[in-house]
Amino acid sequence: MSVYGASVTKLIEKFESLPGVGHKSAERMAFYLMRKSEEEVKDFAQAIYDARKQLKFCTVCQNMSDKDVCDICGNASRNKSIICVVQDPKDVQAIERSREFNGTYHVLHGKISPMSGVGPDDIRIKELLARLDGTVKEVIVATNSDVEGEATAMYIARLVKPLGVTATRIARGLPVGGDLEYADDVTLGAAIEHRVEI
Amino acid sequence: MSVYGASVTKLIEKFESLPGVGHKSAERMAFYLMRKSEEEVKDFAQAIYDARKQLKFCTVCQNMSDKDVCDICGNASRNKSIICVVQDPKDVQAIERSREFNGTYHVLHGKISPMSGVGPDDIRIKELLARLDGTVKEVIVATNSDVEGEATAMYIARLVKPLGVTATRIARGLPVGGDLEYADDVTLGAAIEHRVEI
Repeated sequence: MSVYGASVTKLIEKFESLPGVGHKSAERMAFYLMRKSEEEVKDFAQAIYDARKQLKFCTVCQNMSDKDVCDICGNASRNKSIICVVQDPKDVQAIERSREFNGTYHVLHGKISPMSGVGPDDIRIKELLARLDGTVKEVIVATNSDVEGEATAMYIARLVKPLGVTATRIARGLPVGGDLEYADDVTLGAAIEHRVEI
Repeated sequence: MSVYGASVTKLIEKFESLPGVGHKSAERMAFYLMRKSEEEVKDFAQAIYDARKQLKFCTVCQNMSDKDVCDICGNASRNKSIICVVQDPKDVQAIERSREFNGTYHVLHGKISPMSGVGPDDIRIKELLARLDGTVKEVIVATNSDVEGEATAMYIARLVKPLGVTATRIARGLPVGGDLEYADDVTLGAAIEHRVEI
């Protein structure tokens, strides 16, 4: 039952289909847009359409881009001999924010997860192997630290080592600014195991 | 700084402009749509555009509608002699859900709020008065129970009473299923003051 008319009701349903958006939030979003000018709303709709229409994946690192080769892969000052492998585009953003890494990336778009029917061929591992042409010295596997992320890391390591490429895994340990008291046992165990000399 | 390309970045900004949506949620929404087919995303964008393009207000009750006269005002079985005055379209939806009301509505699209520069002429009060042609017996003012909502209710009551229309206010009291212990003083006071015989 709706009292808003068919088109607003449809819009609320569309917003509700987005991740993390419930019915009340969807209503709020729809009403917010209904109060905007027709021009502004057209702009909004256009942005959605354009983004999907123009969506490409960088032919090198497979990250989302609107060019054939993304800004990072096309940047001559980035170190092409180190590739940091991540699950999702947002992980690239996160690592870029840390300003600690000057190599290039490779986006898998997922992780190996037999439970969800995602095998090695369903994520972009072969595109990674195609990049290992002798110029790449190290592959840093920065998948998430959950079971599937670890399994994916192990799988990739086993493939790249025979090619003479060093495979490394991002460090696990206490978050910077973190309190020992609140760290979980596994993290604390990893932090002790991977201690470094000072 | 963005690593996704201009069009995806613009889309994230657009989502971020919606009420209650932060940067991370906006990213999640954008990535969710980027994984959908071009057809589905076009449908989504179209729904936004259509809703705004087709947006009308019922010429009687001023609620959002895609017709000139909304389904409630056009329904012959609704009691046209009682008008329930609410602030927003979503309040109509809320009262309809209670299934307790068979009259018609009037949507003010706001409340009188001198602090925000909203006067009586900025909300749809004159459209309400135009409906009081002698056939209407009662106006139930169901604005919110905050200071501005109460002031708006008082203002409307003062205007409609001289026209021979009964003005009533929705009851305040303990929420159904509510615990006396946790009710605030003002609500509890109102609940006692407006007690009804059993």
